[in-house]
Amino acid sequence: MSIRIGVIGCGVMGSDHAELLHRGVAGAQLAAVHDFDAERASVLSRRLGNPRNIESAEALIADRDIDGVLIAASDDTHAGLTLAAIAAGKPAFCEKPLAATLEECRQIMAAEIAGGRRLVHVGFMRRFDPGYHAMRAELQEGLLGRALLLHCIHRNKIAPDYITSDLVIANSAVHEMDIARFLLKEDHAAISVISGPASRYAVARQPQVIILETCGGAVVTVEISPDAVYGYDVQCELVCEDGTVSLVPPHVISRRYDGHDGIAVEEDWRTRFRDAYRLQLQEWIVSIRDGRPSRGASAWDGYQASRTAEAGLAALRTRQRVVIPAEQAPPFYS
Amino acid sequence: MSIRIGVIGCGVMGSDHAELLHRGVAGAQLAAVHDFDAERASVLSRRLGNPRNIESAEALIADRDIDGVLIAASDDTHAGLTLAAIAAGKPAFCEKPLAATLEECRQIMAAEIAGGRRLVHVGFMRRFDPGYHAMRAELQEGLLGRALLLHCIHRNKIAPDYITSDLVIANSAVHEMDIARFLLKEDHAAISVISGPASRYAVARQPQVIILETCGGAVVTVEISPDAVYGYDVQCELVCEDGTVSLVPPHVISRRYDGHDGIAVEEDWRTRFRDAYRLQLQEWIVSIRDGRPSRGASAWDGYQASRTAEAGLAALRTRQRVVIPAEQAPPFYS
Amino acid sequence: MSIRIGVIGCGVMGSDHAELLHRGVAGAQLAAVHDFDAERASVLSRRLGNPRNIESAEALIADRDIDGVLIAASDDTHAGLTLAAIAAGKPAFCEKPLAATLEECRQIMAAEIAGGRRLVHVGFMRRFDPGYHAMRAELQEGLLGRALLLHCIHRNKIAPDYITSDLVIANSAVHEMDIARFLLKEDHAAISVISGPASRYAVARQPQVIILETCGGAVVTVEISPDAVYGYDVQCELVCEDGTVSLVPPHVISRRYDGHDGIAVEEDWRTRFRDAYRLQLQEWIVSIRDGRPSRGASAWDGYQASRTAEAGLAALRTRQRVVIPAEQAPPFYS
Amino acid sequence: MSIRIGVIGCGVMGSDHAELLHRGVAGAQLAAVHDFDAERASVLSRRLGNPRNIESAEALIADRDIDGVLIAASDDTHAGLTLAAIAAGKPAFCEKPLAATLEECRQIMAAEIAGGRRLVHVGFMRRFDPGYHAMRAELQEGLLGRALLLHCIHRNKIAPDYITSDLVIANSAVHEMDIARFLLKEDHAAISVISGPASRYAVARQPQVIILETCGGAVVTVEISPDAVYGYDVQCELVCEDGTVSLVPPHVISRRYDGHDGIAVEEDWRTRFRDAYRLQLQEWIVSIRDGRPSRGASAWDGYQASRTAEAGLAALRTRQRVVIPAEQAPPFYS
Repeated sequence: MSIRIGVIGCGVMGSDHAELLHRGVAGAQLAAVHDFDAERASVLSRRLGNPRNIESAEALIADRDIDGVLIAASDDTHAGLTLAAIAAGKPAFCEKPLAATLEECRQIMAAEIAGGRRLVHVGFMRRFDPGYHAMRAELQEGLLGRALLLHCIHRNKIAPDYITSDLVIANSAVHEMDIARFLLKEDHAAISVISGPASRYAVARQPQVIILETCGGAVVTVEISPDAVYGYDVQCELVCEDGTVSLVPPHVISRRYDGHDGIAVEEDWRTRFRDAYRLQLQEWIVSIRDGRPSRGASAWDGYQASRTAEAGLAALRTRQRVVIPAEQAPPFYS
Repeated sequence: MSIRIGVIGCGVMGSDHAELLHRGVAGAQLAAVHDFDAERASVLSRRLGNPRNIESAEALIADRDIDGVLIAASDDTHAGLTLAAIAAGKPAFCEKPLAATLEECRQIMAAEIAGGRRLVHVGFMRRFDPGYHAMRAELQEGLLGRALLLHCIHRNKIAPDYITSDLVIANSAVHEMDIARFLLKEDHAAISVISGPASRYAVARQPQVIILETCGGAVVTVEISPDAVYGYDVQCELVCEDGTVSLVPPHVISRRYDGHDGIAVEEDWRTRFRDAYRLQLQEWIVSIRDGRPSRGASAWDGYQASRTAEAGLAALRTRQRVVIPAEQAPPFYS
Repeated sequence: MSIRIGVIGCGVMGSDHAELLHRGVAGAQLAAVHDFDAERASVLSRRLGNPRNIESAEALIADRDIDGVLIAASDDTHAGLTLAAIAAGKPAFCEKPLAATLEECRQIMAAEIAGGRRLVHVGFMRRFDPGYHAMRAELQEGLLGRALLLHCIHRNKIAPDYITSDLVIANSAVHEMDIARFLLKEDHAAISVISGPASRYAVARQPQVIILETCGGAVVTVEISPDAVYGYDVQCELVCEDGTVSLVPPHVISRRYDGHDGIAVEEDWRTRFRDAYRLQLQEWIVSIRDGRPSRGASAWDGYQASRTAEAGLAALRTRQRVVIPAEQAPPFYS
Repeated sequence: MSIRIGVIGCGVMGSDHAELLHRGVAGAQLAAVHDFDAERASVLSRRLGNPRNIESAEALIADRDIDGVLIAASDDTHAGLTLAAIAAGKPAFCEKPLAATLEECRQIMAAEIAGGRRLVHVGFMRRFDPGYHAMRAELQEGLLGRALLLHCIHRNKIAPDYITSDLVIANSAVHEMDIARFLLKEDHAAISVISGPASRYAVARQPQVIILETCGGAVVTVEISPDAVYGYDVQCELVCEDGTVSLVPPHVISRRYDGHDGIAVEEDWRTRFRDAYRLQLQEWIVSIRDGRPSRGASAWDGYQASRTAEAGLAALRTRQRVVIPAEQAPPFYS
């Protein structure tokens, strides 16, 4: 029996998820869609085998023929819809961020704990990227010894005008904050932010260099360049006692042409992390089928990423190193 | 509705295909398995969600609840089972080679043509490898101009003792023969084989250098090294008038360790072409659902690969360049 | 006519320089050597064509048949010997650091200015590395736009026991401080140092992450890993508005062996920067022949590197960002 | 004392050699130049420190103040000038080819043997390329086992109109023939040539695929593309029993720009083999100073390359495999 999924939000991310559920994930059935713009949902439905177009998100969540809910509506709806799914006892895949405030994150965790069952998966897709996955496996195998440093680079081709330095931290850097926790298995203890000079392409933002210090003493350097112009580029090197392991972006061909020999850089995260998105949904579907929590980011992970991002915003404003108080994960999440 | 597949042959390849149908392909259902060793089929069934274990291949093909047949039994059974599937009007995915003789290939094509419907997909998975796929797209886009030369390298880690130079041509080189036709879209007109010296690891075989000349005048060089020892390695460079395009093996991490900086070579074709196998099955399932021929290798393609391989065996024996007579594809296949 | 050079100090660096002057540099003649251990100088002399072994550094500097002096004795002698060369009106190639204190650096500049002629070349050889040289040329060409960020990585295989974190800043990081000024053409305005966890191989030191901010607002990240174990490795990426340019370590072969595909990492800086050392000496010899200042690092450059290193030591101790006061280069040096 | 060299021929190659002797080689003195166009020699002399401009090649060879002769005049003069240098008892560096005919090669060897002293160095500069050098050292170390196959690729950006397929063999492929002997230390036993289709850029030539078989059974594949358009590109992979070693073209930076990530391809052989040319001349100068034969290609090596090239021309014309009769090197050359 296929797992029947309802997708809430039919914008770019929601459409991509819906398409994967329809064509690229085993054991899934795209059973319903919803968007506040009903026509947009309707267009998507016609393109993907005519799943039902349910007119309210609440109705979709409550529907008896829906086994799991994928939340890809606007960021401000995430917390409310996730709480509704928990109340309905249904697995919820929530696009990042989990919530707009730390307080909402805590409410979601409280609801989940009260319900006694882990139902929330936060869409930090990089955890399913084969490269990050292999880096973590390499570290766990132990050949390279203990992790000392991590270098992360995150470059967007060109950011829309409304993106400010604050949003660069909250929307882009948050991916690095989560992946650093995922790779190093240590919470962050402090954060510093050093702003670079504005590129001539930038409007209200600058490249940022972020330094994270983990509870265990490891140091993470992060470059966030919102306007790299040449393309979308994510790099990562994990430096251990006996060696290092680096991400190799997934290029399948190289070209020699017009005096150059090399590879084509990606346009955006959707092509770069195509496999990660597919594998993430596949794991989520299998976890529902098997009745166990997803191996992806939990509500606790989403909360930690948001805590670090909030500290990062303070560090950006004050130009000071900001300490992040230690917080113990509830046993429910460990 | 899922497409219900029966898998005939539960050895290494059959098991891999069955697992993909069960876990990695959207819209498929592993509905039945069969093996001449019923216990082996039974073990596989228990591991993959308990599809029916049908005791004869003929019964599986005839079964009304089976929508498509995947043939991965021993090479000598391919032709007979494929003919049976055609007789039953069912889509057949046949592992390469399509048949043991050219005469059998012709019988299969005749049966398919008589039935009026393309039902056969031959398992040349490389056509679905993202790298080869991108190389072909690059050529089609036209930026690089006309194709002039193609360089192919195919190295196995170490071949089993029973592999002879004849089998190196028939089993390994046949992949290069097919992919060269796929990339260049031209049939082969001549073949030469030059044997290298035996490695100390080889028993009854040697590395082979093969030169293919296409109808259109392009030249293909092929290295087949059955005992490369360091790993499984497939390389390819397409040389065009204005530039070249090369395969980048799909490595997701690189490592700096113990004086070295680089990537880990694959162990065998199953890991190297994991994505190709998955994407191939996905296309086959979609083609059944949509009631159209698969975009993979057809019976005609399988026949052409076998014709070139047979000429290659003659070239190996005689140490002469062997001309391959031109043969026009029936309209049914073009 | 060859330029006759006297080498003071016949340890590792002095011997390497002497050998290059004897065998690898056009227009040079290794005319004399000196070491406080006369026997060591004698051994080197016999190996390299029997230049004179002069028993005091002062006599060597004063000798009428010596056209230039290369100072590679212990660090504490650099300032005194350089001042003696200036007093004798002879070009001096001084291994880095230029002096043990900032005060001595200022004395050297004062003497040089008083003499009215630029005579001092500080041995920051990286400025002659073909890679860094090409990076700078790329920036100057302007295609990539303005420089925003610079990422530097400097890893030693394993440091001797006496190396402390202070020495890691003063001896290793100083190369990055100089090359950042060379590439960006901007002085440093502030420095922060974040210490990583001690590797199990380290005795009294840790990897360091250093953040430099330049007068123009560019940000430089530096990793210094004194105990990288896998080898000696220097990396650099310059991030500009329209693209980035990275150092490619000079490997001439790659190897596929035993499951790996890649290159061999260098053992130490002497092999990694072999070309840089040769090209540096070649430029120095040509500058003497042509009677003009060398294009290498000047006394002013040596002084700036030392100023930043000193601020770095303060940042290491205080764990605070340390501001480096702006200082205008005397017209003599610009 | 510097070794005083006279350069005959002030065209592109002669000028490059002269400049290296003047600026880039230790222990050398550019003492004289000659060109049949005296004005051209005069211009070069003024640019490179005013060595004498000697009006006849014969006078230059005979001059008592010339220690060695570098022959870079037109190909048809090579044999005569080399014989004159041998007669004068002077070391001769002869640009490839050694002579226009095999008969002339034999005369040169006879003269050298009669004189009792090895005086001829043939300018196969690739033997001094750090990459090829390291490949050979790797093979000699033995870790990779016996050599089985060698793949060579030689691409020119665009050939002048007068270059025909014959000249592609004689002028370009001859480098591969020599380097294959150098790497494998085995003479060639047979050669086949397969012509590819003409590129639209070609006038009277085509890319060629050449197969060499060595006395020891190794197989060499060679691609010669005279009109590769995208740049000058030389690749090489040596396949041994336990692994392979490949040339890494000497790029010092890579660039991320405008959707691409990679390196810039060379324009021609002069930049690609800059180090090889320098190191070749350095070895030649040292060999003269030390009174021993140069370690570069000997007259025997030049003769062998020409023998293979001549067989290649026959193979090109006849489209047949051409056997190259074994010939034993005189003891004088081994």
